[in-house]
Amino acid sequence: MTGAPLNIALIGSGFMGRAHTLAFAAADRTFDLPRSPRVTILADRDLGTATAAAASLGIARASGDWRETIADASIDMVAIATPNLLHAPIAIAALEAGKAVYCEKPLATTIAESEAMTAAAAASGLPTAVGFTYLYNPMIVLARELIAGGEIGEVTAFRGIHAEDFMASADAPFNWRCEPDQAGGALADIGSHIIAMARHLVGDIAAVSGRLHTVYPMRRDARGADRAVTVDDQMDAVVEFANGATGTLAASWIASGHKMGLAFEVSGTRGSIAFTQERFSELRLYRSGPGRTNGFTTICAGPEHGDYGAFCPAPGHQIGYNDLKTIEVKAVVEAAAGLPSAAMSFADALAVERVTDAIRRSHREGCWIGLQAAWAGASAASISS
Amino acid sequence: MTGAPLNIALIGSGFMGRAHTLAFAAADRTFDLPRSPRVTILADRDLGTATAAAASLGIARASGDWRETIADASIDMVAIATPNLLHAPIAIAALEAGKAVYCEKPLATTIAESEAMTAAAAASGLPTAVGFTYLYNPMIVLARELIAGGEIGEVTAFRGIHAEDFMASADAPFNWRCEPDQAGGALADIGSHIIAMARHLVGDIAAVSGRLHTVYPMRRDARGADRAVTVDDQMDAVVEFANGATGTLAASWIASGHKMGLAFEVSGTRGSIAFTQERFSELRLYRSGPGRTNGFTTICAGPEHGDYGAFCPAPGHQIGYNDLKTIEVKAVVEAAAGLPSAAMSFADALAVERVTDAIRRSHREGCWIGLQAAWAGASAASISS
Amino acid sequence: MTGAPLNIALIGSGFMGRAHTLAFAAADRTFDLPRSPRVTILADRDLGTATAAAASLGIARASGDWRETIADASIDMVAIATPNLLHAPIAIAALEAGKAVYCEKPLATTIAESEAMTAAAAASGLPTAVGFTYLYNPMIVLARELIAGGEIGEVTAFRGIHAEDFMASADAPFNWRCEPDQAGGALADIGSHIIAMARHLVGDIAAVSGRLHTVYPMRRDARGADRAVTVDDQMDAVVEFANGATGTLAASWIASGHKMGLAFEVSGTRGSIAFTQERFSELRLYRSGPGRTNGFTTICAGPEHGDYGAFCPAPGHQIGYNDLKTIEVKAVVEAAAGLPSAAMSFADALAVERVTDAIRRSHREGCWIGLQAAWAGASAASISS
Amino acid sequence: MTGAPLNIALIGSGFMGRAHTLAFAAADRTFDLPRSPRVTILADRDLGTATAAAASLGIARASGDWRETIADASIDMVAIATPNLLHAPIAIAALEAGKAVYCEKPLATTIAESEAMTAAAAASGLPTAVGFTYLYNPMIVLARELIAGGEIGEVTAFRGIHAEDFMASADAPFNWRCEPDQAGGALADIGSHIIAMARHLVGDIAAVSGRLHTVYPMRRDARGADRAVTVDDQMDAVVEFANGATGTLAASWIASGHKMGLAFEVSGTRGSIAFTQERFSELRLYRSGPGRTNGFTTICAGPEHGDYGAFCPAPGHQIGYNDLKTIEVKAVVEAAAGLPSAAMSFADALAVERVTDAIRRSHREGCWIGLQAAWAGASAASISS
Repeated sequence: MTGAPLNIALIGSGFMGRAHTLAFAAADRTFDLPRSPRVTILADRDLGTATAAAASLGIARASGDWRETIADASIDMVAIATPNLLHAPIAIAALEAGKAVYCEKPLATTIAESEAMTAAAAASGLPTAVGFTYLYNPMIVLARELIAGGEIGEVTAFRGIHAEDFMASADAPFNWRCEPDQAGGALADIGSHIIAMARHLVGDIAAVSGRLHTVYPMRRDARGADRAVTVDDQMDAVVEFANGATGTLAASWIASGHKMGLAFEVSGTRGSIAFTQERFSELRLYRSGPGRTNGFTTICAGPEHGDYGAFCPAPGHQIGYNDLKTIEVKAVVEAAAGLPSAAMSFADALAVERVTDAIRRSHREGCWIGLQAAWAGASAASISS
Repeated sequence: MTGAPLNIALIGSGFMGRAHTLAFAAADRTFDLPRSPRVTILADRDLGTATAAAASLGIARASGDWRETIADASIDMVAIATPNLLHAPIAIAALEAGKAVYCEKPLATTIAESEAMTAAAAASGLPTAVGFTYLYNPMIVLARELIAGGEIGEVTAFRGIHAEDFMASADAPFNWRCEPDQAGGALADIGSHIIAMARHLVGDIAAVSGRLHTVYPMRRDARGADRAVTVDDQMDAVVEFANGATGTLAASWIASGHKMGLAFEVSGTRGSIAFTQERFSELRLYRSGPGRTNGFTTICAGPEHGDYGAFCPAPGHQIGYNDLKTIEVKAVVEAAAGLPSAAMSFADALAVERVTDAIRRSHREGCWIGLQAAWAGASAASISS
Repeated sequence: MTGAPLNIALIGSGFMGRAHTLAFAAADRTFDLPRSPRVTILADRDLGTATAAAASLGIARASGDWRETIADASIDMVAIATPNLLHAPIAIAALEAGKAVYCEKPLATTIAESEAMTAAAAASGLPTAVGFTYLYNPMIVLARELIAGGEIGEVTAFRGIHAEDFMASADAPFNWRCEPDQAGGALADIGSHIIAMARHLVGDIAAVSGRLHTVYPMRRDARGADRAVTVDDQMDAVVEFANGATGTLAASWIASGHKMGLAFEVSGTRGSIAFTQERFSELRLYRSGPGRTNGFTTICAGPEHGDYGAFCPAPGHQIGYNDLKTIEVKAVVEAAAGLPSAAMSFADALAVERVTDAIRRSHREGCWIGLQAAWAGASAASISS
Repeated sequence: MTGAPLNIALIGSGFMGRAHTLAFAAADRTFDLPRSPRVTILADRDLGTATAAAASLGIARASGDWRETIADASIDMVAIATPNLLHAPIAIAALEAGKAVYCEKPLATTIAESEAMTAAAAASGLPTAVGFTYLYNPMIVLARELIAGGEIGEVTAFRGIHAEDFMASADAPFNWRCEPDQAGGALADIGSHIIAMARHLVGDIAAVSGRLHTVYPMRRDARGADRAVTVDDQMDAVVEFANGATGTLAASWIASGHKMGLAFEVSGTRGSIAFTQERFSELRLYRSGPGRTNGFTTICAGPEHGDYGAFCPAPGHQIGYNDLKTIEVKAVVEAAAGLPSAAMSFADALAVERVTDAIRRSHREGCWIGLQAAWAGASAASISS
């Protein structure tokens, strides 16, 4: 580490605020970062809350006013871990104040806000980052390298799902994730991960035809009141990528039996790659060849892969979810330091949200939604009729 | 076995004709059938071909004229193993002649023909059967029983694929499966299996939105000539079932690494079932419950399951593909004997082909295709917007 | 098929007698055999039993006297499917009468008898065969070829088990498998399969140190009588092979959860092979190499492997247990026809039983038992102290 | 956290010293510990080394003299991360100075030393701890609870291995792990983990019969010199537990394809548990019952299991190897604070080393070695002959 410390203002002291604080510290311990991240101010909705949280998290200063915090000249980057509705105003203000911004996903609760944030980022020329933690997994880094290196030929299909079951029971309570105003629903809440993965590995999505399904139209909230649910419990879509590949995307928080089932298979003309987050230290790779000893090879994560070696010098020992967050934060710090970085930017997050939005529109209108001007739909040359 | 022998005329002496002959003999050896199946006549396109094949297969009589064969008074059932284009005329003539009919899938090469065959079957009141071999697997029988018994609650999703890779290479030659007139393409050729499975386990499909993809628009045939390919190499669709469940269906013969990847997961409000034909003696079952010792249970096929015990008295030994065909033929003989039977009828096959056809139309028209009058589309009450 | 029919006398009409009859017929249908096997006489303990069984199995002649049957000039091979105690007298008499012999495992109930049978076979120069069905699996054929071809380097270890659980419950009844006089116990009954596998893949076993364990010293028989059990419920042994490889062998019929757990891993200096009979259409192969994309590859059985193609032209469809028996019988017929054959001979079976016997002695005497004159034990040069 | 800080002197600043420092900090962040661990002094072989390392690790004081450090009145616990040869003198001196001791495995390089350390611990009445990291895995905690709760009935067998392949190549260099004086060899280095696991889950080992195997008797060291190897590359043993269970233990650092293959299966009269460290967030559990829907259930780690919830509130996200070390250190701190603790004591580590030693003796003498006075060997009542 050679540069000056990277002074960070953290806005929000809930679960994610704590996670950010721990991740910055872990990244600093684990990696040789270009600048040492230091969370120096914690802002929250009032000074009392902020002060208590800052003490607990070992942060020197506290503030009850995020606007004041953002304006602080000592701050290099603003980390946003507030409720989703506040993402846009804070991020835009921070960018206008000349700060790099690291924002939790989703970027915002409407496409318009996300577009405004992305425009503000572009106008400022400042680094931005959004946490799509699963993309930083060394095995996903490997998958991306393999695909980019042509190891599976031309990509022809991507089929993926993000399946969990924390809402599978009729008794699962109504919560903020059930609120459409909070970017709720399985599609937005967890489907965004599989959409981000698809884009990360295969590229832009050109068109979608999707279907939302609310299995439980009524859930009881924590106070015992029946609440109408208008967001989706599960989503299924057919997609076409800009490069011509086709496939399916799905998301479900009622997928009984799945705890962290972010799973996909990418098929190519000369091979395939399969993955599930429930065994995220493994990647299954098939390369075409004579059948006698060919098949899917299960690759086990080790120091050859991405940043694994920063956590353990020997293969097979496994890193954990929090280590993925640590790798994510490393990328954020590198981006904030102006270096080439694997961090997902606001533009990346906006692209994901455009797909989310297109799937919702597709469901509502009962038709395909094109995401790219060039999308020629059913008349595309390489598609048979 | 108590009834009179079941005299069968086999039309067609190719690969499937041989398979039929072996399967009837195997079923007779393996099961206590209501009537003993005997292939007594083999008809083919000319007498010489038929005579040679009959000798090789140990069939007493041969004929070069399928019409004459069907008219033979000694015949109880006609088994059709001809090229797809001949299915309809033979089946309809056989039904009109008062014979039960057992036809290889697909029923026909157009929906109109399939409808005519199904109408003929209904008019005749005679038993019909179509070979969807994979549905007879003891583990699929178990899956169906579990779902029907409410073990996984209300079904909320079915996501399935039939993935193989025999056409994955650009060098895979153009063959009859590439001919649209022969019901070619991945959707028709293998996708019909996953559609049949979905219907078998979840029920009727109400609507589809699908996309076909021809990755190789040109292939070289066996004589070295370049041939345009107009059928699909892969298909992806979103589906909605009549009971409200939603999900995806896919088919691909270019899914690198998959040899017999007929795989699915059915999710319900209280559990899930997962399966892949590549390990068809296993079924994975999840039932909701406290998480401490809960998870997917891998059930290993044994005598408790369907007809497994007819092949082996001990669990875990595994039955093979040919044994599935033997179980299928048992159902065919039971149907022909007028008994309750698990055999898939012409009506079942027609329902599968209607889905196939709807997916093709959906691709062509770029919209959802409803398969049931009742399908209310995007305005369905249980679907959020 | 070019040779004269192979006329077979079957002695014993129980479960295994039926299995033999079906397997000979299946092999004749499936393969192009050098001679067509025909079971022409069935002998059993009395003429009535034999006559009834012959009628049921479609065998032309019946006899109540195995000696007379063996003497029949038309007979080329004698197939023995009697209780184990009769294997030796029948086999020796048959060899003396100039007949090839196919005997179910175990060869006999004592080493002395097995030695006498093997000596009689050697003296006669006639083909013999013993059914170790699992060795004929196309994936085991592949494993053997890979090892012989040096694909995993020098073999350094073999660790295997045959685990089932049909006796796991205290309520599992006393039966003939619990009788020491009938070659009972987990070691003899199922352990022989993993020993045969170890020899088949790695070669002769030089020494063993084993331990037997009778978990249930008393079981109730079918008539409700309590019976003392003196045979083992499970066995564990350390072994050293003649080529220096070391490892473990185990057998258990109380291994809760395992239905057909014949499983092993062979390690070599440049790779490994792993297998379990519960997924016997798969073989897992590791070959040393750079770690970035290396790992165990799961090979799926197909026409490239052994005799798979005789059952199905496409990979991934799976053959079943009865198909393995059919492949075994093909080897038996080839051996009987005087051709090179994969059949296990009496000498092979004797070698397995010597290991079984040595493990029993090792348990009794509490020490290592050498099986080869050359075994130098603890002083072997390549073994550290 | 309510108690006074726990002041720790760390002896040794190599890889393990750093790991200790990080783990103490992580445990303090992650858990609500009874006393807050603070590494306040770092001692190493000379002051310069210690000072540099202390600066890098953020430790306030440095020392070139471990004796002086131990004597420091402010110190509550001594953490030993030195070469193995120094474990005994430091630990004994620390105990005599009234300090709790946390020592890396192995306890020492000879049984005599380990006995002396354990005696010193007993005489002092002070807490001791040894790092068997894998035992702290939430899924192993679950396995132990299930076994203790009788969920799999009486344990009848334990079969386990620790398989890695970092020495599989003839080119793997001679290093300190190849030195017998440093407690080298696969048995001591990694086999100790599977022995500790066996004891942890099943209880004391009563007797062993083992075999060591040095596949590469010569390896080249880092300076290019050929060095004779006298330690084992792999070890296989039959074991009998004090409770009558039997089984096998193996260790190999030449097990091609295995990176962290600490794997076992425990069988009981009513169930089984299977595990591999390469998928350490899963436990496979079988409970006896009707076969129709029974099988091994794959349990996925979540907040219900051990300390998982301290790292992540949702199941399926996975913890990593470093998190296991954090849980270990929590137990160490609890022990040092005089609370009930899951920490492995010197007595536990000695018991493991007695087994290691017995296997070595068994190999050398070519016979069974009893570890308990009560072991009756071959004449045990429950063992058949």
